[in-house]
Amino acid sequence: MAEKYVYSWGGGTAEGNATMKQELGGKGANLAEMTTIGVPVPPGFTVSTKVCGYYYSHNETLPSTLEAEITEHIARLEKNKGATFGDLENPLLVSVRSGAAVSMPGMMDTVLNLGLNDDVAAAMGKKINNERMAYDSYRRFINMFGDVVMGVDHHKFEVKLSEAKKKAGVQNDNELSADELKEVCQEYKKVYEAETGEAFPTDARDQLDKSIMAVIKSWMTPRAELYRQKEKIFGLEGTAVNVQAMAFGNMGQDSGTGVAFTRDPSLGTNEFYGEFLVDAQGEDVVAGIRTPMPIKEMKTVWPDIYKELDDIRLKLEKHYGDMQDVEFTIEKGKLYMLQTRTGKRTGLAAVKIAWDMVQEGKISKEEALKRIDGDHLNQLLFPILNPSEKASAISDNRLFSTGLPAGPGAATGQVVFTADDAVAWHKQGKNVILVRKETSPEDVAGMASAEACITSTGGMTSHAAVVARSWGKCCVVGAGDLAIDYDAKTVTCNGMTVKEGDILAVDGSTGEMIVGEIPTSASPVIAGVVDGDTEAQKTEVFKMFNDIMNWADGVKKLTVRTNADSPRDSKVARALGAQGIGLCRTEHMFFEGDRVWSVRKMILAESEEARKEAIAELLPYQREDFEGIFKEMDGYGCTIRLLDPPLHEFLPGDEAGMKEMAERMNVDISVVKEKIESLHELNPMLGHRGCRLSITYPEICVMQAQAIIEAACNEAKKGTVVKPEIMVPLIGKEEEFQILAKIIRETADAIIAERGVDVSYQVGTMMEIPRATLVADKVSGGDAGAEFFSFGTNDLTQMTFGYSRDDIGSFLPEYLDQKILREDPFQSIDQEGVGYLVERGVTLGRQGRPGLKCGVCGEHGGDPASVKFFHGVGLDYVSCSPYRVPIARLAAAQAVIEEK
Amino acid sequence: MAEKYVYSWGGGTAEGNATMKQELGGKGANLAEMTTIGVPVPPGFTVSTKVCGYYYSHNETLPSTLEAEITEHIARLEKNKGATFGDLENPLLVSVRSGAAVSMPGMMDTVLNLGLNDDVAAAMGKKINNERMAYDSYRRFINMFGDVVMGVDHHKFEVKLSEAKKKAGVQNDNELSADELKEVCQEYKKVYEAETGEAFPTDARDQLDKSIMAVIKSWMTPRAELYRQKEKIFGLEGTAVNVQAMAFGNMGQDSGTGVAFTRDPSLGTNEFYGEFLVDAQGEDVVAGIRTPMPIKEMKTVWPDIYKELDDIRLKLEKHYGDMQDVEFTIEKGKLYMLQTRTGKRTGLAAVKIAWDMVQEGKISKEEALKRIDGDHLNQLLFPILNPSEKASAISDNRLFSTGLPAGPGAATGQVVFTADDAVAWHKQGKNVILVRKETSPEDVAGMASAEACITSTGGMTSHAAVVARSWGKCCVVGAGDLAIDYDAKTVTCNGMTVKEGDILAVDGSTGEMIVGEIPTSASPVIAGVVDGDTEAQKTEVFKMFNDIMNWADGVKKLTVRTNADSPRDSKVARALGAQGIGLCRTEHMFFEGDRVWSVRKMILAESEEARKEAIAELLPYQREDFEGIFKEMDGYGCTIRLLDPPLHEFLPGDEAGMKEMAERMNVDISVVKEKIESLHELNPMLGHRGCRLSITYPEICVMQAQAIIEAACNEAKKGTVVKPEIMVPLIGKEEEFQILAKIIRETADAIIAERGVDVSYQVGTMMEIPRATLVADKVSGGDAGAEFFSFGTNDLTQMTFGYSRDDIGSFLPEYLDQKILREDPFQSIDQEGVGYLVERGVTLGRQGRPGLKCGVCGEHGGDPASVKFFHGVGLDYVSCSPYRVPIARLAAAQAVIEEK
Repeated sequence: MAEKYVYSWGGGTAEGNATMKQELGGKGANLAEMTTIGVPVPPGFTVSTKVCGYYYSHNETLPSTLEAEITEHIARLEKNKGATFGDLENPLLVSVRSGAAVSMPGMMDTVLNLGLNDDVAAAMGKKINNERMAYDSYRRFINMFGDVVMGVDHHKFEVKLSEAKKKAGVQNDNELSADELKEVCQEYKKVYEAETGEAFPTDARDQLDKSIMAVIKSWMTPRAELYRQKEKIFGLEGTAVNVQAMAFGNMGQDSGTGVAFTRDPSLGTNEFYGEFLVDAQGEDVVAGIRTPMPIKEMKTVWPDIYKELDDIRLKLEKHYGDMQDVEFTIEKGKLYMLQTRTGKRTGLAAVKIAWDMVQEGKISKEEALKRIDGDHLNQLLFPILNPSEKASAISDNRLFSTGLPAGPGAATGQVVFTADDAVAWHKQGKNVILVRKETSPEDVAGMASAEACITSTGGMTSHAAVVARSWGKCCVVGAGDLAIDYDAKTVTCNGMTVKEGDILAVDGSTGEMIVGEIPTSASPVIAGVVDGDTEAQKTEVFKMFNDIMNWADGVKKLTVRTNADSPRDSKVARALGAQGIGLCRTEHMFFEGDRVWSVRKMILAESEEARKEAIAELLPYQREDFEGIFKEMDGYGCTIRLLDPPLHEFLPGDEAGMKEMAERMNVDISVVKEKIESLHELNPMLGHRGCRLSITYPEICVMQAQAIIEAACNEAKKGTVVKPEIMVPLIGKEEEFQILAKIIRETADAIIAERGVDVSYQVGTMMEIPRATLVADKVSGGDAGAEFFSFGTNDLTQMTFGYSRDDIGSFLPEYLDQKILREDPFQSIDQEGVGYLVERGVTLGRQGRPGLKCGVCGEHGGDPASVKFFHGVGLDYVSCSPYRVPIARLAAAQAVIEEK
Repeated sequence: MAEKYVYSWGGGTAEGNATMKQELGGKGANLAEMTTIGVPVPPGFTVSTKVCGYYYSHNETLPSTLEAEITEHIARLEKNKGATFGDLENPLLVSVRSGAAVSMPGMMDTVLNLGLNDDVAAAMGKKINNERMAYDSYRRFINMFGDVVMGVDHHKFEVKLSEAKKKAGVQNDNELSADELKEVCQEYKKVYEAETGEAFPTDARDQLDKSIMAVIKSWMTPRAELYRQKEKIFGLEGTAVNVQAMAFGNMGQDSGTGVAFTRDPSLGTNEFYGEFLVDAQGEDVVAGIRTPMPIKEMKTVWPDIYKELDDIRLKLEKHYGDMQDVEFTIEKGKLYMLQTRTGKRTGLAAVKIAWDMVQEGKISKEEALKRIDGDHLNQLLFPILNPSEKASAISDNRLFSTGLPAGPGAATGQVVFTADDAVAWHKQGKNVILVRKETSPEDVAGMASAEACITSTGGMTSHAAVVARSWGKCCVVGAGDLAIDYDAKTVTCNGMTVKEGDILAVDGSTGEMIVGEIPTSASPVIAGVVDGDTEAQKTEVFKMFNDIMNWADGVKKLTVRTNADSPRDSKVARALGAQGIGLCRTEHMFFEGDRVWSVRKMILAESEEARKEAIAELLPYQREDFEGIFKEMDGYGCTIRLLDPPLHEFLPGDEAGMKEMAERMNVDISVVKEKIESLHELNPMLGHRGCRLSITYPEICVMQAQAIIEAACNEAKKGTVVKPEIMVPLIGKEEEFQILAKIIRETADAIIAERGVDVSYQVGTMMEIPRATLVADKVSGGDAGAEFFSFGTNDLTQMTFGYSRDDIGSFLPEYLDQKILREDPFQSIDQEGVGYLVERGVTLGRQGRPGLKCGVCGEHGGDPASVKFFHGVGLDYVSCSPYRVPIARLAAAQAVIEEK
């Protein structure tokens, strides 16, 4: 028996259901499911994702049995709909939509009104007694088919439409008469013929086959690939193709179309939320060409339909158990649902909906934790515009415009008007605000590069809004009073003109845009949690955040520490739930203020004694830093890494700096230059740094151990519970650790004995050299061994891959494009290679020292996927930057839940 | 029962034997063995190496039972010798010598004549009726004890001796009278007291205990550690201490002392070879202070003793089965053997002796192969001074002096007069010739840095000679007519004065020194093998070399390939036994002549088309290079690596070069500078290079594949058997390989199909990124996988250790000193870490592709220890530079033999 590739639905039954997303795509599976549970859905069929998979794995050919199977399902659809392809009496018109297992809004191309040709359009116009609508549908179809299937520039059709409107002296498309639209259709067909070199196809099956093929091909377009990359969507077979009988929203004032969410996708509030347009087809809403009406106004316009829609909303949310994003069309007073899917939401909404549903008894706390991802949580922690500065800017008449608050957070940056400029300026290190009339999938890369996006048209479900929200990016849409001049590169509003490069501040939670810079400040959660702002603590957001973090802590097994180098960072991190410091980098302490001069004196010193003298100057400062950190981390372990960077990083890079150094050091500038020259390295990453510094200059190690232990003793005397963990970086051979650990322990023990304070400490190592992970048992083993491991996955990634993090930019984009890498391995850990070494290091390390404490302190400690991996290999803790701590806590809980 | 720490010998029996070298040291074990087999040896006892081991592992304390045990063995020794410590009638005098399991000549300190004090010396003088000898022995003892045991500067004693000789108006030590020597003893004791702050010890047991302790402590002196490092001696417990009744060579004209080899250690000839001094103690010969007589002259001086000694020579060589290095003393006509050990020898001698012994039927071919090491063989391949240039220099009266040919090879360099200068100048990249009156262990580091060493005193067994020979370093000793002025830094001879920094050429095989530079040229072996010089082919060396290489090839399993980038190198390597090319680096082909301009044009190109055009210019050159290589390697595989270095290496580094480039490229210099800036990398080793270049610029890969395959087709048409193996460098993920292999295979197949030539090729990869070794099964697996692996252990070592080979110099010396590293991991493979990855790569690679061909092409391919490791992990071949091929062949054979 041949494999089944096509699945029908209609007439209250369906061959598919909601569990079949892999084969039918999300859209197809849910259309089948809705049909089965009694929601009104136009009939249709789905061409399975297997066809797409087959196509790309069989040299771009289709399964031999497909054509016949489609013929069979067209017949079934014709029967269900009571209409026939090409029939002049009762023509079947269909939509062709893509739909993969994972929703990719705006990424895949859609064709509506398929089945029309000159004859059918004419016959249909007569039959429905609405020629205008027939030709409107026809011209839309020619446009979409031309654009989507054949790659004709959409703009070429638009020009013709504009000419027709001008000729007719009207403003809006729907003011054109039937004859005028008929003329537009002929013009469109000419455009089509001119651009493609062939006549517009008149046969419906021919139209359908070409459209299905176009959907399949759109799976591999660069923009689709970019979206999958950005969203980390891998392992799908391809897209399904949904062929569905048309429902017409453009059949007059008793018709319309809309999209809605079963709850507010921006704030999460439990109320029906959406938009609709009267006498319009679906793409008018999504494309943001006309600004639609809020869904609640439907109560007034069509009270019965609103009631029916609201019932369906409740039915669907109950059935699916989560907030839904639906599309619907009303054709001459009859409601059809065209799609339902789990709705994308802002971080705030995700948290609010999950938290509400727990309160409503609809889902468990664990289920709630599963539904919130790190990015969602991150959005709660996003900055807001400084309230007083913003208020004063508004009173200064700097409010530029207000649009729809489509994406969270706030941002300040320089205005650019094209996606390419956004990419280019961003590469130059600038913060940019992308301002567009509307956005399209072509703009995705530019949006990704921008701090915020602004559009003058479109609603909360427009392309810009959906994409920005899913990325947690600040976004304002539908700011209709913005006059954008792409040629002049200006945007004018409210009597002000903002030019390319000017500064604009954007508030994604209110939709306000303000001219000039406004400092951003922490979110209410941060204000409440970190700064103890009592007003902020009264907010629901604050309460939700706390509840969710508590739920996560109740589940997770990993401890979450933080990477912090100062008392301030320690305090923030602790407020955000960090239980200790996983990485305190001490080199920052060498740079601050005048300290670098002592370091430079040490570097220039000719004798060990002179070096010791210079470095002794740093001791009191370091000790003070450590005291502050220990105090903030009272009761928790603090892992402090000995000096890591190569010495040349402390020397001036320019002539002026060298001159200043020579003067302060009272030496000839040639001495400074010679020293800089002698410390120059071809590959500093693989050079004289880390523990290698302490092996050659043990006095650095001694001073640092002294500062740490003296600080610990001082704080312990004041009653602080101090747990210093001294970390030796860049170990490759066990001997390096043993030699330095001996120096550290001797220094520490002498101080503790002298002070008579009860301070216990550990000496451990950073695992970041591939070799160290291979001999980890020797590093941890024996009395002289390491008492803890902290995996430095940044450097471990650099050396395991042979990638310099600083230089990867020259080939990383190509590597992502060609799918050699699925993502930047410095952002999410390479589980197969680097992860193997981590796992081996843990296993061997615990062979050498049973129960060895193991953690990670690379950037990966704040990446959810990496956190889950680290949970899996049995680490005791992850450590990340302070603001990533909540995300790590959540991911650690999810790791446990997902394991079940 | 307490552990036994002391072993006696004497009176024809012994507690130890030759197999007990680990406990008794080589010297102690052989003294016991010689006693047992009836060779005359003064009685004594050995304090086991376990005592030394105990001392360093027990906080520098001695075993509690040791003192009593020594007392017991002193008693036994007194009985055997018939003399007693401190007895005025019949005083026991002993020597105290170090002796580890592995011979370390000149490295350990020796004390002779122990047991003397004022009273014993006086009584002894009377008893032997030779006061002069008694006081001569006494003053030597005070000197040695002061120097060796108490660290008093030897020079301080020398000053007193010189004063005494001046006062007495004599030239030589042995012209001093008994009274004068007695006076010297008193002066020496004053020096001792002034320097140590205590009186010279008079009690023999006290003297002995202190001396034993000094020997034990000398195990850990920097110079001993340096020697062990240089010789790669690890894993010993420590040194044994040999306490032996004195035999006096300084009892007049019927006494003497000497050292000898059972065969010529320089040429290997089967004849008795050595030196002796009349009326002298052992250290006079070794220290090179007096130039001794050749051993054959003993036939005339003492015919009976010569006969006895020659019999012992034959007996020992027969007993031990190898050439022996012996020390002996004649005390009033009675011969005593003081030591026998396997003799160090030059490479030539090692080969000659092993080869002779096979001819003599004394050892098997396999045994012969075991006895020759890589360095020995290497010495046969050493350069010699260009014969015609040398002849003309000599006829130009540039012959400076002729000394004893103590170390092999030849060298030209700048003269320095101190070991420190040798080290410093060498660090500056200069070739230096170290000229000294004599060398001592303090000079070892300087000798290691010098191209050649010259001494004006000393014989073939002097310190300089022994050390140089063991390292295979060019060395001339005993050039007595050299007048060295350390202060003026000049050496004068033959009417010429050579100043510091002047050039001297040294011929280590003739002992000649020539003023000015003389080019060095290949050894007779190289001349015969590589250049087909028929005269050279008639030499015995040539014949031996060929025999030994044939024996090795009959045993070895590893194939030995070569790293060669040109037809010339390929030819040399093939002559030296290479069976294919393991690494042909193509980047050299990009630099040659004008080619770099095409590369630069490519780098500046703005479009893919322009890049292709520029790179196409290189195609004919590359193709021609490959043709030459294929021709030379007819029948063997040639692994050709695609372009590896980052592009910036092809750009000029200085202003003038940039200017020239701008002119030739017809662009503004700013364009050149910007390009250089844009290609600058912080860590180029981890940057945009290797396969990453071909991923971003596939046209490079296409051009190279085309050049290789076109060359292969052209050569194949001429009847050459070509086996191109195209190697993709720097793979970290299998996708990189698959993408490039596809490009290469498509390019190659198209050319082969078009030409219609039957050429088969392989596409494989260099394993040099740690990650690649961890996923090797994926790299080799499937149709798209790699057909061979070549481990690039240079880069693999860099990344596994995190060491930049270019920058390691700043900490490597400290790492070797502190024993963090036992040797430079770029010279001999780190088996535990890097080796683990190689092994894993091989295992996984063959899981992915059964029977996968695996080799190594790093520098390690020519290092014997590494070759043995690679044999052990099952590689198919090693590849090394052409002149290392014979060493690799030998090591590959030894690996098989050692496995048995």
